[in-house]
Amino acid sequence: MTKVGLFAGSFDPVTLGHIDLIQRASRLFDHLYVVIMTNSSKNYLFSFVEKENLLQQALAAVDCPNVTVLTAANQLVVTVAQKVQAQFLVRGLRGSADLDYELAMQEINHLQDRQLETVYLVARPQYAHISSSMVKEVAHYGGQVAGLVPPVVATALAQKKAER
Amino acid sequence: MTKVGLFAGSFDPVTLGHIDLIQRASRLFDHLYVVIMTNSSKNYLFSFVEKENLLQQALAAVDCPNVTVLTAANQLVVTVAQKVQAQFLVRGLRGSADLDYELAMQEINHLQDRQLETVYLVARPQYAHISSSMVKEVAHYGGQVAGLVPPVVATALAQKKAER
Amino acid sequence: MTKVGLFAGSFDPVTLGHIDLIQRASRLFDHLYVVIMTNSSKNYLFSFVEKENLLQQALAAVDCPNVTVLTAANQLVVTVAQKVQAQFLVRGLRGSADLDYELAMQEINHLQDRQLETVYLVARPQYAHISSSMVKEVAHYGGQVAGLVPPVVATALAQKKAER
Amino acid sequence: MTKVGLFAGSFDPVTLGHIDLIQRASRLFDHLYVVIMTNSSKNYLFSFVEKENLLQQALAAVDCPNVTVLTAANQLVVTVAQKVQAQFLVRGLRGSADLDYELAMQEINHLQDRQLETVYLVARPQYAHISSSMVKEVAHYGGQVAGLVPPVVATALAQKKAER
Amino acid sequence: MTKVGLFAGSFDPVTLGHIDLIQRASRLFDHLYVVIMTNSSKNYLFSFVEKENLLQQALAAVDCPNVTVLTAANQLVVTVAQKVQAQFLVRGLRGSADLDYELAMQEINHLQDRQLETVYLVARPQYAHISSSMVKEVAHYGGQVAGLVPPVVATALAQKKAER
Amino acid sequence: MTKVGLFAGSFDPVTLGHIDLIQRASRLFDHLYVVIMTNSSKNYLFSFVEKENLLQQALAAVDCPNVTVLTAANQLVVTVAQKVQAQFLVRGLRGSADLDYELAMQEINHLQDRQLETVYLVARPQYAHISSSMVKEVAHYGGQVAGLVPPVVATALAQKKAER
Repeated sequence: MTKVGLFAGSFDPVTLGHIDLIQRASRLFDHLYVVIMTNSSKNYLFSFVEKENLLQQALAAVDCPNVTVLTAANQLVVTVAQKVQAQFLVRGLRGSADLDYELAMQEINHLQDRQLETVYLVARPQYAHISSSMVKEVAHYGGQVAGLVPPVVATALAQKKAER
Repeated sequence: MTKVGLFAGSFDPVTLGHIDLIQRASRLFDHLYVVIMTNSSKNYLFSFVEKENLLQQALAAVDCPNVTVLTAANQLVVTVAQKVQAQFLVRGLRGSADLDYELAMQEINHLQDRQLETVYLVARPQYAHISSSMVKEVAHYGGQVAGLVPPVVATALAQKKAER
Repeated sequence: MTKVGLFAGSFDPVTLGHIDLIQRASRLFDHLYVVIMTNSSKNYLFSFVEKENLLQQALAAVDCPNVTVLTAANQLVVTVAQKVQAQFLVRGLRGSADLDYELAMQEINHLQDRQLETVYLVARPQYAHISSSMVKEVAHYGGQVAGLVPPVVATALAQKKAER
Repeated sequence: MTKVGLFAGSFDPVTLGHIDLIQRASRLFDHLYVVIMTNSSKNYLFSFVEKENLLQQALAAVDCPNVTVLTAANQLVVTVAQKVQAQFLVRGLRGSADLDYELAMQEINHLQDRQLETVYLVARPQYAHISSSMVKEVAHYGGQVAGLVPPVVATALAQKKAER
Repeated sequence: MTKVGLFAGSFDPVTLGHIDLIQRASRLFDHLYVVIMTNSSKNYLFSFVEKENLLQQALAAVDCPNVTVLTAANQLVVTVAQKVQAQFLVRGLRGSADLDYELAMQEINHLQDRQLETVYLVARPQYAHISSSMVKEVAHYGGQVAGLVPPVVATALAQKKAER
Repeated sequence: MTKVGLFAGSFDPVTLGHIDLIQRASRLFDHLYVVIMTNSSKNYLFSFVEKENLLQQALAAVDCPNVTVLTAANQLVVTVAQKVQAQFLVRGLRGSADLDYELAMQEINHLQDRQLETVYLVARPQYAHISSSMVKEVAHYGGQVAGLVPPVVATALAQKKAER
């Protein structure tokens, strides 16, 4: 049976931590869907189209041929998994503060679909401190984001700051 | 001396995790007050009256004769405890992420009233992943909430979604 | 129905943290049994009789008339609870590191006896850092233990050190 | 490329938590090796042969055709993974207390073999409280272990107790 | 070389926990800058000038001659450290929930300036439960804040409540 | 006033994590004492003299001129601090699991000497996974320890293994 994984996130914007997890996860599955989820009640810095372009460009620079980027708005991740016939959700763990939340999500998702399994990768130490929200805050105040995000994202963040 | 406990929360909406804690706590005290606290600066999905009806209906379906439901707006839980002469606050713990917050609350409450004691019950594993906020999010996107909330709440959530 | 609690520990030796928890727990129940549990595969500094004397003397100095001290060797705490007809186990939590262990114990005990409930008190901040093992180490190297243990225990620790 | 996973442990004895993780992990890989690791400096309740028999019997009762049980003494898990050409280590997480240790192990293993990836499954709530050491302690004092271990293990534990 | 430390925060308002950390940190450095950072996208209860007056008055009541209070709006803490030539950031830790965030901040700051070191002090137990946000909530509902904040802050909070 | 720090540990053996902390701590103080503490009730792989030689050689290879290595057997760290007139203890934090223990030690030490302050550095991510005990286990089974310990320690570990 073909093993299909799904890695969902808001990617606002994609970081080097996301890229590392996607590469590592892509080796675990025959195919990996990376899904940009958006929730109309939240505010994002980047539009849906911008996020997708940044993610596509960042992934083009690394080796992961079996990855497809998708977008999905206002739905449960379980619904997306069913549509693309993914049997596995992939989640990254960065520290113990994440774990209680992740366990709750795993159980909620299990209730929706008992066939869906959640698999975790733990962030490598050099990426464990990176979050999209910190990246945005640093960029907002003119700090250095090289080393936190792919070069295309650094450029996009600088442009957003200039447009403000 | 009669032992009186108080279990406060926003119950927006009540979950099966709350019901289990209330039943377990009711056996510890001669009388248990369950208090729906609201804070005018927060947004709730359910109105004060809706929350109270749902909680009353959910409790009617289980065995806990020594429980009284109250409502209280814009006040400290310590003030409510003094009004109903409760000597004990009851809190549920779901994981280690809760604990730092709970210890802070215990000390703040102790400063307000040195006679008031806080007692903790740890959520049974099958309920540890349930929170009102996750329930609302799942229901909002049309997911399954049976197994997370009492049947009356599942119905009320479906109705809220239809009204949107 | 009379509410009976059971607070078990190895009390090698009893600390001010234990005494505070016992006093607080004694107000929650009609009667509280404090049980010195020993396990023949472990090494203790104090003998069964010494531990019991120290605990009795320390409790005599504070106000908790509804407390009885018992001893129990090589058995499950659930078995002791059934013998003394306690419906509640009381446990102290000192920090998040304790919580995973406590949740495991709660579930193991629940499997043994579904009527037995576990209730937690969180250590007050001034006692959260005290453990019997740290007290023994400090005393062993001639450090100050006043402020960590009742006076009778400080004297007993000094005597143990002199006898070595 | 065939995906091969390795799930290592001391299995002294195997629990229902292990069996659940093995079943879940077996669906993630084309083949899964379950390896009983022993360390000559540690004391075990069950011999190498007993552990293997119990694990084989317990797995025979569930559906996981692509699982092979192996044993390995006094070596690093990385060495075993290289021998069986496993590209993935599988680890179970039970709570946040496990996570710091797991992250350290992941990095130590990564240093040994940069091709080896570690994948985590989070214990389902009903199994999160089960550990081999607690099971042995409960059985030692005559407690109930049905619900914690497979029936063959419950029998073996009762026999060990009778032999003492 | 003169050792210069920087302790940054929003101080909305300053608490007894802040004052204790500032006093302790002032002994570690030849000079300590305490910087009130504000972020124009956040809402504060106290204005920039009010916060500074309260902090100055609170510090005047304790012994810390080598402390200077500064204010900084909409910039990174690293930028402020460079301006005042501080080689060390000082941070307070209140519990394990803080630690993941602090490690992330340390690495982000290290990326900005590799010469800047972060040093942590762990809150003394009697202050570990105090946060500005809880203080504001307690004061808002008319609770007791003596024991949580310096007297001048208690007065200022009462005045804010009266003005509402 | 001269600021003197003390960094104590068992250093069995010294790791790259220790060396990084010592270098970082040496910049914080006018003088830093690194103290090898031994406890006669524990088993060590390396003798007192071996540990000291390894630590001296490892420190000679990095830049930290204001560091002195000392040894101390069977005493409290507070006693050592008083002897060398250190006003500050330095501790490394690797993760949240360390924090509860550290807070307890801080309070116990504060009870012994109210003038003594404890200062924490958080391990940089690339060192956070290294512990002396894991290093010894990896070396024992013939794994790679370069990247975990200084070269002289790697050699010493290989020699210990050959001698076995």
